[in-house]
Amino acid sequence: MSDEEKTLTAEATTTTRTARLQLSLIAEPGDVQMHEAVARHGSDAVLAACIGGVPLDDEFPKPSWSQRATELDQLSDTALEAAARTGMRWVEPGHPEWPEQLDALERVEPVNTVGGAPLGLWVRGPLRLDEATDRSVAIVGARAATTYGNQVAGDIAAEVAVEGCTVVSGGAFGVDVAAHRGALAVRKPTVAVLACGADVVYPRAHANVLARIADTGLLLSEQPPGQTPMRGRFLTRNRLIAALARGTVVVEAARRSGALNTLNWAQRCGRVAMGVPGPVTSRASVGVHHAIRAGGVVLVTRSQEVLEAIESVGTVDATLPWVPPTGTDRLSVSALRIFEQVPAGASASSADIAERVPCRPDEVRLALGALADAGFVVAEGDSWRAIRPERRADLS
Amino acid sequence: MSDEEKTLTAEATTTTRTARLQLSLIAEPGDVQMHEAVARHGSDAVLAACIGGVPLDDEFPKPSWSQRATELDQLSDTALEAAARTGMRWVEPGHPEWPEQLDALERVEPVNTVGGAPLGLWVRGPLRLDEATDRSVAIVGARAATTYGNQVAGDIAAEVAVEGCTVVSGGAFGVDVAAHRGALAVRKPTVAVLACGADVVYPRAHANVLARIADTGLLLSEQPPGQTPMRGRFLTRNRLIAALARGTVVVEAARRSGALNTLNWAQRCGRVAMGVPGPVTSRASVGVHHAIRAGGVVLVTRSQEVLEAIESVGTVDATLPWVPPTGTDRLSVSALRIFEQVPAGASASSADIAERVPCRPDEVRLALGALADAGFVVAEGDSWRAIRPERRADLS
Repeated sequence: MSDEEKTLTAEATTTTRTARLQLSLIAEPGDVQMHEAVARHGSDAVLAACIGGVPLDDEFPKPSWSQRATELDQLSDTALEAAARTGMRWVEPGHPEWPEQLDALERVEPVNTVGGAPLGLWVRGPLRLDEATDRSVAIVGARAATTYGNQVAGDIAAEVAVEGCTVVSGGAFGVDVAAHRGALAVRKPTVAVLACGADVVYPRAHANVLARIADTGLLLSEQPPGQTPMRGRFLTRNRLIAALARGTVVVEAARRSGALNTLNWAQRCGRVAMGVPGPVTSRASVGVHHAIRAGGVVLVTRSQEVLEAIESVGTVDATLPWVPPTGTDRLSVSALRIFEQVPAGASASSADIAERVPCRPDEVRLALGALADAGFVVAEGDSWRAIRPERRADLS
Repeated sequence: MSDEEKTLTAEATTTTRTARLQLSLIAEPGDVQMHEAVARHGSDAVLAACIGGVPLDDEFPKPSWSQRATELDQLSDTALEAAARTGMRWVEPGHPEWPEQLDALERVEPVNTVGGAPLGLWVRGPLRLDEATDRSVAIVGARAATTYGNQVAGDIAAEVAVEGCTVVSGGAFGVDVAAHRGALAVRKPTVAVLACGADVVYPRAHANVLARIADTGLLLSEQPPGQTPMRGRFLTRNRLIAALARGTVVVEAARRSGALNTLNWAQRCGRVAMGVPGPVTSRASVGVHHAIRAGGVVLVTRSQEVLEAIESVGTVDATLPWVPPTGTDRLSVSALRIFEQVPAGASASSADIAERVPCRPDEVRLALGALADAGFVVAEGDSWRAIRPERRADLS
């Protein structure tokens, strides 16, 4: 344990940083209600209310929090002892290591009862969290990955790592650990965001790789030390992976894979969502293909494309082909071309319109009917007129 | 040879239909200059000028056409004899069998010296060309296809054929013949568009499959009978495959595959362009992935998705996620979200804007600078104001 780490854990018992740490022992990390309570009243007030049993308003504190608060001294001692033993530090908003990009979660709608930036993170390893994750890519995917998925994940991870990009993943079987191993193989740091305490070795089979990450990269978790990886915690954890990294690459994912949940958080955080295709005959790629088809997920085939995509974040060059569909964006290419030929100031017959587009007259007539149903054009006798954008109803 | 076919070939020697047939013997089919000459002067006049050596205008007829016209009687006899021997008929615009969708080529920019609807088609087989191709899908791809590509092409072909959709392809090695065989395997008709005369067996190894297509489906070509498949003719032929079918699926394609040329024609004709992904480790899928990344090509994984995509042609539901980028479509997701927060009537600081988007303040500042460079926003002191669409320069 370094001197700095000693100072940090010592501090945590004496300053307001304590409040967030202690609240993370009282409520399940990621609990959106705790997040709201802190946003509304501040962490000190919420903690005081939990401990004193004094209501802050009709909603807070929850009875279960007050209940947990009665055990707070013991919970806190246990956590801090474990942290000291395994060399973990508590990093919360305002801490020099805090990765600002996590604040994006403050502005993203929660999913079910989970959301918001974490109260803080338990961090284990020699790197500064903010620096290690500033230029990072999440590589996630199926636990039941194929040889192909493991190979591609490892290759992309090694290649982006060599280019100075930190590989973030979840430490799980399959694609996750293949990504971590890819970075470790080229002696570059990697960050594992765990669904259990950052001192808990899970899965057991990854004891060696997790130890190497703790020695050369970072293990981190919003779960207090000692916590086991319960079912819901994987989904909660996914939002941290997505928000930490500039982009998330899904290498393999079956139709209902948790990796798609991470991809979804990435999209909602405004990060680059990417998917690596695979054989259409492989179940392990079905979820990735589905996500690409649904839109908003960039198909990537190699590390260079991943790096290009994340470098484009916040710039104007349209590396991301997707924008949320509004207005004419909802039209198919054919329908749009037809629509563009319909005058707004006058009206034109479908035959006139058909002459100006590479579609058959019957297709044009069908499309005009559908465009009318959708409120883009209006029939005037045998002719058609475009409805100006500002007069179109419910099109955005 | 049926009575109808006899009538058709007999007719071809006596009516204006002759003019187009004879012009196809004089100029290389697909020659955009011949196409222009016919469009400008009519086929009878162009033919008369070629035969009589009389100029129509500064450009037409080309000296090479007049030269060829001196051999016209013999060329014509040879073609009609071969057609009669192998049971081929000449189908041109206005003929009851003419597939109207080919007229789309009239409105598509030529590529190099190739373009336009064909002067006519030599057709061999028991089906009506217009009916057989009305609801059709082109399945094309690499000659050097992998086992995976052959399997997927055959499966998709068989499945769309069972659903009453005619499989169109080019009769070549690899994906093409796998697609034809898939349709034949379920006893459904398939259409091969050849780069040689429809009576020429090429490649020789496909003698059996071409014979089966001629017996149960259609072989067709704009090349006169007996013509060999010269290099450029494959590219010329590709536009016919693309225009005939409602959509083109590329199953495998290396980076510079001819199949991508067909896909490009499909897009330019307003047809649905589709690509089947494969392992990113396979060279045979590189061109497909590249095309999907470039935009305008829908990723498809199975026959149902192909059918859905072609059914949507001319309808308003946005199965095709692509529209030609204009205005804000050119922005990345992040940039668009930032731009949406910039007021047009007033101005806002980058800090104010950063609070409303899931991006870091430094990303927002960078993006605003880039948006200003691109003419979307303007700086006013330390603040930013959006430029209204109608005042933006050069954005479409």
